[in-house]
Amino acid sequence: MKFSIERAALLKAVSQAQAVVERRNTIPILANVLMEAEGDRVRFKATDLDIEVIDSAPAQVERAGGTTVSAVLFHEIVRKLPDGALVQLEEDQAAGRLSVTAGRSHFSLATLAREDFPMMASSDYAANFSCDAPVLRRLFDKTRFAISTEETRYYLNGVYMHVAEAEGGRMLRCVATDGHRLARVDAPLPAGAEEMPGVIVPRKTVDQMRKLLDDDDLQIAVSVSETKIRFATPDITLTSKVIDGTFPDYARVIPSGNTRKLEVDAADFAKAVDRVATVSSERSRAVKLSLDEDRLTLSVNAPDSGAAEEELAVAYGDEKLEIGFNAKYLQEIAAQVDRENAVFMFNGAGDPTLMREGGDESAIYVVMPMRV
Amino acid sequence: MKFSIERAALLKAVSQAQAVVERRNTIPILANVLMEAEGDRVRFKATDLDIEVIDSAPAQVERAGGTTVSAVLFHEIVRKLPDGALVQLEEDQAAGRLSVTAGRSHFSLATLAREDFPMMASSDYAANFSCDAPVLRRLFDKTRFAISTEETRYYLNGVYMHVAEAEGGRMLRCVATDGHRLARVDAPLPAGAEEMPGVIVPRKTVDQMRKLLDDDDLQIAVSVSETKIRFATPDITLTSKVIDGTFPDYARVIPSGNTRKLEVDAADFAKAVDRVATVSSERSRAVKLSLDEDRLTLSVNAPDSGAAEEELAVAYGDEKLEIGFNAKYLQEIAAQVDRENAVFMFNGAGDPTLMREGGDESAIYVVMPMRV
Repeated sequence: MKFSIERAALLKAVSQAQAVVERRNTIPILANVLMEAEGDRVRFKATDLDIEVIDSAPAQVERAGGTTVSAVLFHEIVRKLPDGALVQLEEDQAAGRLSVTAGRSHFSLATLAREDFPMMASSDYAANFSCDAPVLRRLFDKTRFAISTEETRYYLNGVYMHVAEAEGGRMLRCVATDGHRLARVDAPLPAGAEEMPGVIVPRKTVDQMRKLLDDDDLQIAVSVSETKIRFATPDITLTSKVIDGTFPDYARVIPSGNTRKLEVDAADFAKAVDRVATVSSERSRAVKLSLDEDRLTLSVNAPDSGAAEEELAVAYGDEKLEIGFNAKYLQEIAAQVDRENAVFMFNGAGDPTLMREGGDESAIYVVMPMRV
Repeated sequence: MKFSIERAALLKAVSQAQAVVERRNTIPILANVLMEAEGDRVRFKATDLDIEVIDSAPAQVERAGGTTVSAVLFHEIVRKLPDGALVQLEEDQAAGRLSVTAGRSHFSLATLAREDFPMMASSDYAANFSCDAPVLRRLFDKTRFAISTEETRYYLNGVYMHVAEAEGGRMLRCVATDGHRLARVDAPLPAGAEEMPGVIVPRKTVDQMRKLLDDDDLQIAVSVSETKIRFATPDITLTSKVIDGTFPDYARVIPSGNTRKLEVDAADFAKAVDRVATVSSERSRAVKLSLDEDRLTLSVNAPDSGAAEEELAVAYGDEKLEIGFNAKYLQEIAAQVDRENAVFMFNGAGDPTLMREGGDESAIYVVMPMRV
């Protein structure tokens, strides 16, 4: 294998690939990135056996072939090369080395045979559809905060992506919950997604995937089977196993009879929660909301350190209510609100509370209260 | 005690004070900041028993007095208050609380009695002098990287500040070393510093002090005794114990007979060292310098991961030399160079190497080689 490539194109491709590599590996080749040169492109592939990323970049290929080198080391080297440099890569198969040259810098890196690089088994995808990057981004961004980190509840360690019946018809829906809060976000169902099986997309996949979605003009090709999900842009393909488990019946958790409506400026609310929570002990982080006619009082009482109270002008017309929440949960759901107002729907002090963004029904959040 | 103060002035004063507070304290009051209102100012004082910082700010004092509250908590609260807010503080001595009000936010913080706040014993200062902030900044900035972190060599855990005889006359000199490298930086001796005893300024004091020095126009009043050093600006006074120990005779370490002169662009050199060091194992980090007529080759050979080599055009006219260094040490001394060129003076491959910045003799660095 022998090829030359622009440092910028190389850095971009390697960055995407190396991000998926785990820092500690018991299988040495999993620390490596596989590069394969053919035609006028080079493909870079990395995997942790659950996720596989393939990124390709244009290159002047002199001799086709492929090898693997340490992903982190290679990425570091490329990152440190001067901007604008042309990088020449050549494999010395006999010596088991990859030579990397740019200007007066020369590196010789230990390789492992490409044949030993693990292949991810292919899958029969039941659904193939195309989705605008901003749509997928919204689905993941507004749900990922609620993903559970409890490893024993592995079936909650991801975002449940599925087709749902909603009032407006069938939707592409993402749901995440950790038992304390839940996020449910809908998007119009893309053509071709009708037969998609519901899948739980692991947290790491959501995070890796998220990096591909910053380009607003990008179309993402999504393929879904019972066991795998694949996201592809013209340059990058990310294939991931999905979590082998059953996502709980989340609909039961979403309250439908909450009638006490509070409307509040989301940014002001988040800042006020942040301020009063300062005095709360790190363990409990409980904030009390006291609702009265068009007035919301947030308060925290921590015997050791002190007390805090803040009043907000809000729209509220129901009877008095006192209800407590974990401050972090309140801040996180308030941070999801893109428009000005957050609308909370309360029932009793012990009942789950619903929040949505203004009049938008396509994203709803549920948060469980705590005793204060 | 009762006073009102601008949030910005309060934040600045409390920030400086709380930075010195240790996060874990066995003596509860050491976690607190003491505030004392009198006349038209409030003083904020914090200490870790080794360093004491007093910061003062203008305020409308309604009732003089003083109390102490958790420094970290109080700082967090002030930081989160909206910019431009007027903050009202009032002590309720009977309840043992400090009330903090800004707009619609209200906090009530637990206090500890001001009488229990530790006082740092005063000192008879043998020397009092004034120093421009940029001069002190240079003395500390160019030496602090070489401070030892080995706690057993406590007498190396700071910067040795003293009066030294140099070729240009008597100088104010700072020296730091960890046994592997040494930095020695001189400044003209300020009037009044002649009788200053040599003192070892602890690392934490250097770091805390450094935050006061960003204003180029500031004059710092420095006072030194055998046991303490004090730095004062119009608003802030930082008093610190000095390290009770004897700084070693560093002059013996500085080579005087090195004749092989290498001149190299400092930025290019640092970048090249950084690049080749990428392949070195984390433990050794050894870089080999091979010198030949006007050519420097940097190389690293790490059997596990690979090899790296880079050539630099330099000015060198002496005989061939191969010498190894810890990459981190080379990078750190190269980073001290403000002008274009770093000048290295070598002797043999096993001898300490000298570096200075171009023709400037007022800052010199020594670095020990390692076997490669």
